[in-house]
Amino acid sequence: MGRTARASATAGPTLAVVAREAGVSVPTASKVVNGREDVAPATRRRVTEALDRLGYVRRPRFDAARAPGMVDLVVHALDSSWTGAVLHGVEQAAHDAGLDVVVSAALGRSRAGRPERGWLDKLTARGSAGVLFNLAELTESQYGWLEQHRIPFVMIDPVLEPPPGVVSVGAANWQGGVTATEHLLALGHERIAVITGRRRTLCSGARLAGYRSALASAGLPHRPEYVRHAGFDEAVARRHMRELLDLPEPPTAVFVCSDRMALGVYDAVAERGLRVPDDLSVVGFDDLPEARWAAPALTTVRQPLSEMAATALRLLVRMMDGERPESTRTELSTRLVPRRSTAAPRG
Amino acid sequence: MGRTARASATAGPTLAVVAREAGVSVPTASKVVNGREDVAPATRRRVTEALDRLGYVRRPRFDAARAPGMVDLVVHALDSSWTGAVLHGVEQAAHDAGLDVVVSAALGRSRAGRPERGWLDKLTARGSAGVLFNLAELTESQYGWLEQHRIPFVMIDPVLEPPPGVVSVGAANWQGGVTATEHLLALGHERIAVITGRRRTLCSGARLAGYRSALASAGLPHRPEYVRHAGFDEAVARRHMRELLDLPEPPTAVFVCSDRMALGVYDAVAERGLRVPDDLSVVGFDDLPEARWAAPALTTVRQPLSEMAATALRLLVRMMDGERPESTRTELSTRLVPRRSTAAPRG
Repeated sequence: MGRTARASATAGPTLAVVAREAGVSVPTASKVVNGREDVAPATRRRVTEALDRLGYVRRPRFDAARAPGMVDLVVHALDSSWTGAVLHGVEQAAHDAGLDVVVSAALGRSRAGRPERGWLDKLTARGSAGVLFNLAELTESQYGWLEQHRIPFVMIDPVLEPPPGVVSVGAANWQGGVTATEHLLALGHERIAVITGRRRTLCSGARLAGYRSALASAGLPHRPEYVRHAGFDEAVARRHMRELLDLPEPPTAVFVCSDRMALGVYDAVAERGLRVPDDLSVVGFDDLPEARWAAPALTTVRQPLSEMAATALRLLVRMMDGERPESTRTELSTRLVPRRSTAAPRG
Repeated sequence: MGRTARASATAGPTLAVVAREAGVSVPTASKVVNGREDVAPATRRRVTEALDRLGYVRRPRFDAARAPGMVDLVVHALDSSWTGAVLHGVEQAAHDAGLDVVVSAALGRSRAGRPERGWLDKLTARGSAGVLFNLAELTESQYGWLEQHRIPFVMIDPVLEPPPGVVSVGAANWQGGVTATEHLLALGHERIAVITGRRRTLCSGARLAGYRSALASAGLPHRPEYVRHAGFDEAVARRHMRELLDLPEPPTAVFVCSDRMALGVYDAVAERGLRVPDDLSVVGFDDLPEARWAAPALTTVRQPLSEMAATALRLLVRMMDGERPESTRTELSTRLVPRRSTAAPRG
């Protein structure tokens, strides 16, 4: 049930009553109510006064000829700085393209297996021109639904490998993992652990592979006990860090695959009365604003979230125009942001 | 120029061609393309296959009977955790009311004096049912425009005192200022400074007044040199803190009217080789996620941003239904979140 319908049911006087009160035609009164500029100032004033006297409530009306196109950005939750950066990029690029952005946290409300009841239906009824999904883990039936409804869509940093043909934008995660690990190697570390996300998650896998490549290139052995999967959960990362510190040969450095998990690592180090970077060097991933606030400020791998989001919007616009992107996967480069959480290992 | 128009110009085959290819009527092909459920599965499959073969691009269409109502959330910028919390509250409450939310950073792009060219025009054409403004500083002509177009709107934490009759939601800023200052007084501080926003800003004024009331109640003298206006700018707050530390009688505690400015204060203290809270107690305001990350974690006054935003949305919905809220100003309570940045002054 749209709000529009209810509003019209409870609204006061009709436009005809307003027009009579103002001594103008109904089309003229309608122009004023709908914000059209082609009305003489005096006439507009008369109508506005009549509207005020009668307590008229505007009934929103869609004007296809003048309405901008709309795209949807669908996320899990809206209160993280991750999502903020993505939204910033999408909104700016959409503005440049003359599009409006409808934002919803529908993914956070979806039940496994299918989108929220009626959600896609609303999307088509509203005339959405396309959809961006942020960090989505869509099911086969959800992909099928979008395909069937002929709605162009682009995935920003998809959680799992999307089906063939699905267009996505992400960061150069493998290269980021290499960069983080090489930074620690260059400082002289040889006992380097990694705390990453879930096993199947696309970005975790790539970052972990980058870590392994860098170690292999340096001729260092693979130590399974140094590889931890913490599912991007701060508390789980803290637990893994405790276990790493309890090893007979604890690491002198750790590459943590998200800034938020790095906070958990900081906590575990502090609990033992140890210090970052004196006793343990820590590299994060993301470069959220929080990384600057951490004490010590966190050395991290920056992924360009806003640029990734803007790129996704521009790809979507081309798909809305009937083009197919040359490549289904676009990766934007990452770079190391050195701060104070990394140093040479203790002699 | 809407994207919709361009898409239709470059799209491939018409629906009539698709219908012929699939051996169905045009209305049936249209139902499939627009995601309607009342089509037999076999028919849907035939149409979908024809769409695929012909490379059909969907032309989004607005369906007034089935489209949800839409409201606009207008902000300055989208990449802050402040805005994230507001958006979270608006989206959740809008979902509960069956409304979709269009988010734009139009305020950040507006030039002094009037909204961005054509922005309000798009808003009415799209059939927006109402607008929420976050941290807006609207001009008289902008207020007049909204009034004239009969678009209901609510201000979330307006920067300046809005004109009479305008509905707004904010935090209990005066009480927050009292609470922060009383916390410092209770710890034994008597030399308490304040770093607030611009002089004319509504929330700064109220927080400063709360500070003054608490000092007066405690029988402490008013010291003009302890009152600083830093315009919610981190760098300016740092500069003021340096000056405060240079006073013949520097404060032992400071109430900083935003968490971000508190970071500037932390920097100024560290520059002098001093420590928080040993040499200076610091209380912030907002309780953004950053406050937890700061070292030491920041004692602050929490303003319930998501709840403020949700309240604003619910007020807007009532106004869209033709009701007038009983009160034009709604204030939600603040509370102290004690962390590690405050302690008793040094003996």
